Amino acid sequence: MEAEAAPMVKALNLKKDTPPRIPPPAPCISYSGTDWGMNIHLVVFGKCKVTDVDNVGTVPAALTTYLALQEFAPVDLVISAGTAGGFKSRGASIADVFLSTAMVNHDRRIPIPRFDEYGLGRYDALPTPQLQQALGLKAGVVTSGNSLTYTTEDMEVMELNGACVKEMEAAAVAWAASLHGVPPLCIKAITDVVDGDRPAEEEFLENLGKAAHALQEKVPLVLEWIACKKYSEL
Amino acid sequence: MEAEAAPMVKALNLKKDTPPRIPPPAPCISYSGTDWGMNIHLVVFGKCKVTDVDNVGTVPAALTTYLALQEFAPVDLVISAGTAGGFKSRGASIADVFLSTAMVNHDRRIPIPRFDEYGLGRYDALPTPQLQQALGLKAGVVTSGNSLTYTTEDMEVMELNGACVKEMEAAAVAWAASLHGVPPLCIKAITDVVDGDRPAEEEFLENLGKAAHALQEKVPLVLEWIACKKYSEL
Repeated sequence: MEAEAAPMVKALNLKKDTPPRIPPPAPCISYSGTDWGMNIHLVVFGKCKVTDVDNVGTVPAALTTYLALQEFAPVDLVISAGTAGGFKSRGASIADVFLSTAMVNHDRRIPIPRFDEYGLGRYDALPTPQLQQALGLKAGVVTSGNSLTYTTEDMEVMELNGACVKEMEAAAVAWAASLHGVPPLCIKAITDVVDGDRPAEEEFLENLGKAAHALQEKVPLVLEWIACKKYSEL
Repeated sequence: MEAEAAPMVKALNLKKDTPPRIPPPAPCISYSGTDWGMNIHLVVFGKCKVTDVDNVGTVPAALTTYLALQEFAPVDLVISAGTAGGFKSRGASIADVFLSTAMVNHDRRIPIPRFDEYGLGRYDALPTPQLQQALGLKAGVVTSGNSLTYTTEDMEVMELNGACVKEMEAAAVAWAASLHGVPPLCIKAITDVVDGDRPAEEEFLENLGKAAHALQEKVPLVLEWIACKKYSEL
């Protein structure tokens, strides 16, 4: 979302790509720059023409990731950065920033042999044990679904897969990244407590600014730390 | 899915595009040909590299549609053809073939003003009253979600939107088509009764062949009928 991206664009001193590197009719918008010897491309999913809200969810996430990786190839790492719900039972608090260990879909139930595994669509994240320790970041499984809320069935999948973080895009980003053979990683700041008492939408709107600020602070630290390192050093 | 597409490829005498018109790493596969004075491109979503099952659901549907419309432009009409569940309470029986009047997502609940409408993501289908009458095809609202099964919450959305047909791709196809400004239409053959007593996965596997056969019969009839007509004549 623009509210999540704007502080990072500023913090990283990125410039909007004009003319667009990813041409219309794709709704996504890219910003590019160079920091710590790395080319960085930040791509947002753009707006919905009908409702004028930010595109969210797995469909624009996958399309944006696919087209961005095609345009900016070769790419070393795809980062899905944004806000998310967190499980307090697994140590998450508001404005915490998590790295992902794996990405899973929690709303794709297809009870046919092998299609069940396809529906879950689990991808490992690029391992980052040293990064986690160096910056003191929490880490865990991120699960994705197309609703801000969750159903009983969604929660079953999240529990079975040890979800620490719940959001709406990461598994689709990981899928599109896997097509291009690029390792995925999430950096997610917590806006709401999934296993708490308050409606997600209330907490989300209340804490979006706070979480976006935490992202703005941590994402540059992560990028600076990983700059010019090998995968095995992360 | 390949099982749905293969009979249509044969019936329409289409040839696999070699080398691929939509290049890797996109997993989709296209077949092209000319019938009744029209260029026809049939594109399947391809296989999942991890599980080796057909890619299904909104994510590969949107990516495939986007890339196909980019490659085969200009395109007059996008048809999402395949199998689906049907509501007997709205007149659906096994192996019926429906045309769509609209496409809606039934598993994207975002209870924030305007995001709720975005989540629903309703698109009107190209109106086809004369086609429906000429070929005696049923018509109704098609709703999409990423599960073969449904939750109580999904059913609420389906009922509120008068769903006749439930499947896993149409709303995403319509979204990607809308980006390119191309009108969408669904042709869906019924494999299972959504508001019946049997598990969807059982009925789906039992009736997939029968429904694919109905598709093979009706899709060419639809294409022949619409050939070289104006939108307003459909």
